[in-house]
Amino acid sequence: MRKFFTLAVSISLFGAMQTASAQVTSDSLVIRKIYDEALRNRTSYDQLAYLSNKIGGRLSGSPEAEKAVNWTKAEMDKMGLDRVYLQEVMVPHWVRGEKEVGKMVGKKGKKVEVAVCALGGSVGTGKKGITAEVIEVKSLEEVGKLGKDKVAGKIVFFNRPMEPSHVNAFHAYSGAVDQRSRGAIEAAKFGAVAVIVRSMNLALDDFPHTGAMRYDENVTKIPAASISTNGAELLSHRLKDEPSLQFYLKQNPQTLPDAKSYNVIGEIKGSENSDEIIVVGGHLDSWDLGDGSHDDGAGCVQAIEVLRIMKTLNIKPKRTIRAIMFMNEENGVRGGFKYAEEAKTKNENHVAAIESDAGGFTPRGFGIAGLPKHVSQIQQWKPLLEPYGLHDIGAGYGGVDIGPLAKNSNETALIGLEPDSQRYFEIHHAASDTFDKINQRELALGAASMAALTYLLSEYGL
Amino acid sequence: MRKFFTLAVSISLFGAMQTASAQVTSDSLVIRKIYDEALRNRTSYDQLAYLSNKIGGRLSGSPEAEKAVNWTKAEMDKMGLDRVYLQEVMVPHWVRGEKEVGKMVGKKGKKVEVAVCALGGSVGTGKKGITAEVIEVKSLEEVGKLGKDKVAGKIVFFNRPMEPSHVNAFHAYSGAVDQRSRGAIEAAKFGAVAVIVRSMNLALDDFPHTGAMRYDENVTKIPAASISTNGAELLSHRLKDEPSLQFYLKQNPQTLPDAKSYNVIGEIKGSENSDEIIVVGGHLDSWDLGDGSHDDGAGCVQAIEVLRIMKTLNIKPKRTIRAIMFMNEENGVRGGFKYAEEAKTKNENHVAAIESDAGGFTPRGFGIAGLPKHVSQIQQWKPLLEPYGLHDIGAGYGGVDIGPLAKNSNETALIGLEPDSQRYFEIHHAASDTFDKINQRELALGAASMAALTYLLSEYGL
Repeated sequence: MRKFFTLAVSISLFGAMQTASAQVTSDSLVIRKIYDEALRNRTSYDQLAYLSNKIGGRLSGSPEAEKAVNWTKAEMDKMGLDRVYLQEVMVPHWVRGEKEVGKMVGKKGKKVEVAVCALGGSVGTGKKGITAEVIEVKSLEEVGKLGKDKVAGKIVFFNRPMEPSHVNAFHAYSGAVDQRSRGAIEAAKFGAVAVIVRSMNLALDDFPHTGAMRYDENVTKIPAASISTNGAELLSHRLKDEPSLQFYLKQNPQTLPDAKSYNVIGEIKGSENSDEIIVVGGHLDSWDLGDGSHDDGAGCVQAIEVLRIMKTLNIKPKRTIRAIMFMNEENGVRGGFKYAEEAKTKNENHVAAIESDAGGFTPRGFGIAGLPKHVSQIQQWKPLLEPYGLHDIGAGYGGVDIGPLAKNSNETALIGLEPDSQRYFEIHHAASDTFDKINQRELALGAASMAALTYLLSEYGL
Repeated sequence: MRKFFTLAVSISLFGAMQTASAQVTSDSLVIRKIYDEALRNRTSYDQLAYLSNKIGGRLSGSPEAEKAVNWTKAEMDKMGLDRVYLQEVMVPHWVRGEKEVGKMVGKKGKKVEVAVCALGGSVGTGKKGITAEVIEVKSLEEVGKLGKDKVAGKIVFFNRPMEPSHVNAFHAYSGAVDQRSRGAIEAAKFGAVAVIVRSMNLALDDFPHTGAMRYDENVTKIPAASISTNGAELLSHRLKDEPSLQFYLKQNPQTLPDAKSYNVIGEIKGSENSDEIIVVGGHLDSWDLGDGSHDDGAGCVQAIEVLRIMKTLNIKPKRTIRAIMFMNEENGVRGGFKYAEEAKTKNENHVAAIESDAGGFTPRGFGIAGLPKHVSQIQQWKPLLEPYGLHDIGAGYGGVDIGPLAKNSNETALIGLEPDSQRYFEIHHAASDTFDKINQRELALGAASMAALTYLLSEYGL
């Protein structure tokens, strides 16, 4: 607040300022108002409470996903926007089925249960489950080196932890997630009967973390499960004592026919360059274990909040602002592809797209996937954004859902909101991603940061 | 890690570098190792688990505070430090006694209980409690304006919320805490029989937050209680409907004779300038409602961790590093004054003191209370610290416990670790300040940040 008054005083004191600096001052005042509105208002927090607690986990194709589509549309319908609409898209429909069972089976049949869950898209083990010896590896390459002799008939246990020394936890994720996404393919090539993958989690706890895994059409599809980090530690320890230890895995998920679903879109039309579009978005689908509060209910309510702030402050954006709740980020990105496809068909001009899909934590900056001129222009706004803790503004990653827009034009800057990453992988894709992990102020600061950048993009374009 | 290897490669490629830039490179390598060690090791997290879960809340003078003294000394005794010792200090000894009771008493005697707790240092109501009408105010000044006519015989209810639009939550705290610290004095001047103060909490919940309050020897001492933010909202709402609503408050804390306690100190002697001292510290006492994990168990284990990292990496600091667990920050600062007093008596030369007492959250920078030359020298290290998210480095606040050192010499820079502030006031001084709110990585990053700055201070002085 001190900053706010300093600026206001300097206007009255110095009267006729140069245009450029008056513009900066006026922008800084608008941005201050954006943060004031976000921090003083609880709408987005209350919306997320509803989405999380009343609707819950909403995997593509589920009844909950359908409820989330209808509810977010209804929320935006109330806001007096210029347009609210659904964009139809067919999505994969995978269902987890009965609760998974994982047991270490030692000598004399002694069994110890550990927490496992099916990875998203996995096939089942059959009702009787699979029992086999376990071979522990630290990488995809190691499977090949061991070869069929050591791997065939076994369950391959991928147990390379996320490297904790990365300050940005996403770097630790990038360095470990190949085990989850490609482990089943590599293991099956050498005759494995199933894979168990250490959860992508920097903490030691009892939550198995799901997430997308892939099959190769030319390789046998084998069941793929995730094991909690505590379970992985225990299993690894037990294998050192007893290399012939067996593991019993039972999971019976199913892939049903594709289902009809929707991207949900709300729009404020630009007052001057209405054909230039700025997207703000998150994804409405989530994994099924938790309630998807951070991944990515947060991004959805923040996108809606950008529009609410504009309306409340009576900001008339020069360019069109479109808030999108994308469907199916987690296991197919069909919503993202659909949106880009229709944008191409309609020859729409997207200036920029901002995605929030890294949790509703305190924002620390923006990663920009775009042309160098985009990066440098956005970096010129640093003095306006740094007072709000947004220091990390530079070349980086945009987002999964907005990614397909890059194919339409390299003139569209794809921008990812970068929140503090330390807590994200404790709850990511797990039953622990629940509303109690959301902090109202952190969520609001993320929304305000998106709104501030959206405002600047709508004023000046790129 | 990419940064680390880039630097290592550049050394081998370019061979003879200029001294200054070689120094920077070497410092950046040391700092990278400090962060690696902190992030890969769980010692400080495990220590905090013990302090919080096995010892618990440790108000000055309590048996738990004594246990904490003995335990932290024993932890440091194991570390092979050059010196571990206790510094005796007499501390206030206030005890909360039986659980407090607060009830709204409406027409026809209808009672609704709300969550209250005695403020630290408050007197009691007597066993029967106090029942009186309530007058709601938003400021200390308002009490004086209302005057004796409106205030005498009543309970004054201070209900000005922390202003949520401050991005830094500490600014919101500064703007509201006068109600807690001076409310009882102002109200008693005009004949009030007690005060109830809205909890210093930016969230709406049911936890009353305690904290220090003051009396004036020339003004009647009246009971002072805190009410949860939800309770405050409800009470305010009910008063609008029924201005004659009464409130029943019962609390019976006691102030016992001062008790003997200790600052706990561990030291690594400097290899070159051993008479120049750098302090890293937190405070070992906490309020009694929670287990004091964030306030300030975190700061204590981080200070110990600075020494552990130095020992583990075999860093021989040029200057002496002293980790201090101060006693009695919360209700007297006796440990801080005692330490400064003895330092003065011994004519010790303190280069700098770093305090961590703002929660174990992701660090964002350092506030420096010192001479302009101190601030600018530390700011010159920004390129070494910014890769770890430490952007906010500038003039600011040091810390309560290290504060008294300023009177010894203005050549001592007082430095406060500045973690992300968004979640702090949800748990500050409340039963909700518990170990489950600690994130292992955030805690480790704070310790690493203190260790990095301590290393630079020990290499170059100020």
